[in-house]
Amino acid sequence: MAKPTDAAWMARALRLARRGLYTTHPNPRVGCVLVKNRRLIGEGWHVRAGEPHAEIHALRMAGETARRATAYVTLEPCSHHGRTGPCAVALIEAGIQRVVVAVQDPNPEVAGRGIAMLREAGVEVEVGLLEEEARKLNVGFISRMTRQRPFVRLKMAMSLDGRTAMQSGESQWITGPHARENVQRLRASASAVMTGVDSIIFDNSRLTVRASQLGLDDAEAIAARQPLRVVVDTQLRLPQAAACLREPGRTLVATVPGHEPQRRTRLEAVGAEVVVLRAGDDGRVDLSALMRYLAEQELVNEVLLETGATLAGAMLDAGLVDEMQLFVAPTLLGGEARPLFALPGLTRMAQQRPLEILDIRAVGRDWRITARPERRQE
Amino acid sequence: MAKPTDAAWMARALRLARRGLYTTHPNPRVGCVLVKNRRLIGEGWHVRAGEPHAEIHALRMAGETARRATAYVTLEPCSHHGRTGPCAVALIEAGIQRVVVAVQDPNPEVAGRGIAMLREAGVEVEVGLLEEEARKLNVGFISRMTRQRPFVRLKMAMSLDGRTAMQSGESQWITGPHARENVQRLRASASAVMTGVDSIIFDNSRLTVRASQLGLDDAEAIAARQPLRVVVDTQLRLPQAAACLREPGRTLVATVPGHEPQRRTRLEAVGAEVVVLRAGDDGRVDLSALMRYLAEQELVNEVLLETGATLAGAMLDAGLVDEMQLFVAPTLLGGEARPLFALPGLTRMAQQRPLEILDIRAVGRDWRITARPERRQE
Repeated sequence: MAKPTDAAWMARALRLARRGLYTTHPNPRVGCVLVKNRRLIGEGWHVRAGEPHAEIHALRMAGETARRATAYVTLEPCSHHGRTGPCAVALIEAGIQRVVVAVQDPNPEVAGRGIAMLREAGVEVEVGLLEEEARKLNVGFISRMTRQRPFVRLKMAMSLDGRTAMQSGESQWITGPHARENVQRLRASASAVMTGVDSIIFDNSRLTVRASQLGLDDAEAIAARQPLRVVVDTQLRLPQAAACLREPGRTLVATVPGHEPQRRTRLEAVGAEVVVLRAGDDGRVDLSALMRYLAEQELVNEVLLETGATLAGAMLDAGLVDEMQLFVAPTLLGGEARPLFALPGLTRMAQQRPLEILDIRAVGRDWRITARPERRQE
Repeated sequence: MAKPTDAAWMARALRLARRGLYTTHPNPRVGCVLVKNRRLIGEGWHVRAGEPHAEIHALRMAGETARRATAYVTLEPCSHHGRTGPCAVALIEAGIQRVVVAVQDPNPEVAGRGIAMLREAGVEVEVGLLEEEARKLNVGFISRMTRQRPFVRLKMAMSLDGRTAMQSGESQWITGPHARENVQRLRASASAVMTGVDSIIFDNSRLTVRASQLGLDDAEAIAARQPLRVVVDTQLRLPQAAACLREPGRTLVATVPGHEPQRRTRLEAVGAEVVVLRAGDDGRVDLSALMRYLAEQELVNEVLLETGATLAGAMLDAGLVDEMQLFVAPTLLGGEARPLFALPGLTRMAQQRPLEILDIRAVGRDWRITARPERRQE
């Protein structure tokens, strides 16, 4: 039966889970708290794939006192023999009496089986406490498991009149250092950072996480994992000299059949990994196919999309943008500067793309707007 | 000597003054509170030009009890024989012992003389309490008195990607009913509403205050005064059939020498007032000259500028925009839709126009951003 203090303990487990924000890829972020006689007796969080799950850390800390304790877990304990054995079994064997779960595991290998195992062993189980918070923390993992595609977060830095760069492409810097630190953290929490080849050609972006710009205590450890760099490049125009090819981590170049084979050879010679996907109706890389590839082959949970108007517009039109993080600088760049989104064919008010604004907050002297495309009535 | 309750009484006087927000044009908004033995004995505000000033209303309410009372006035009492006689004299004759003033009158006919008169008569006077608030309430009047031009507030309705209309000109409606009600109140508080002739040609805007859309109790009385409509029209292209020419109130058409005389005759025949001003270097109406004309000839304190990218950009480039009210709708209109500002010649980041954001707040499902151009270092 639910207790008044349950939410407080689950909130603590969620805070623990969040400590894995930058490191658990491709696994979900999970936290666990063990409580007995109103006292905390163990806690832990999943740090990194290949290392123990949150429940195991917490059980080790509690030792023998775990018997008849309550466990608060932000995600359903696993039932499958992964690298660390099923956590549901570990909880049963430790004599845990009651398990409170924030959200059921969307992983088809688990999906309620962990909960069923616990119940069959006589453990009292409750599911759904602070579920929204728990979902939010693993929005990418859930997307990959249930939609077979990553959660895509589009980041753009813009002037108040909706411009991302001058006509010439010059854009450094529209936003201030606080916003740029914020973007570094978005990169670090993503499995992959994606852009169009033109952005690389214009800005020579490295797309890396820089420890010195994260503003976090454990920045070095976080930057040790570089998110996968994904460049959408239909004609394989990526320059061999591109800075991103000389950075630690992998660069995946997504293209279509029919490109010049020498270009591919040259890019592979400097370390790029070229993946050939089907072309869409417009002859360009089919973006839905790319998303599915990233989820299935690269286990990408969250994509941070950092790109120009064309690819941003195409992703939006394909219904593949789940969230926007718009960093708005208090400045005007004028009507000749580059737009936020190319949305060809949008000519009447009735075709406008409504958004839902989730949050607006100050970031240094800039503003960050979090929005998502409103799902159309089907 | 200042007392701890002074600020509370002055805040009350400011609230009273604000009741004249929509009606005092071309006079300033002023409130007055009379206090004796910690009790309110009289109060009033200036309602309308030609009617008594705030001090006179308050003194009439207090009657004989005004003797040895303290007066809180949001603007320095006048010293000149206007339509209602000098308020400084009225306060002295009523035996007021102490006068607390929020801000000195910027009117050169007063400018400290009211305060001097009071002091010479032995009245204790303090100046500067809640001065910023008091200035804000009469920002237009102060601008007219000290800069010989109105305070210009630019209003725009935009999508999140900085667009004010589709390529075709279609723009109804980007923002929702709450934002439009807000705009109606901005019109009602302005002395004049200004636009470019193209906005009239495209939208056939009436530029009027509609009582039914103000959402205020005294809407009918407010809408009885229509702000002066100002159309910038270098070539006198305003159609004779324009809806704004058939509305109550005056329409001023600002043009330059060299237009076709028949066009002027035709416009005057349908009630437009044509004023010929010098042309700027670009051959268009010199906007600084227009602002000076509006201040000096039409006693315009505040202009609400509701227009498209060209005139908005030109006013901004001329340094004539004092404040922006941007109503941002949660929607995208795409890169082909119309921009917020045409700023020709702005091609490098170093030329960007920095803004200071003063306020962001929700208005229905839209957001209102209040900003002002950052003054350049000279």
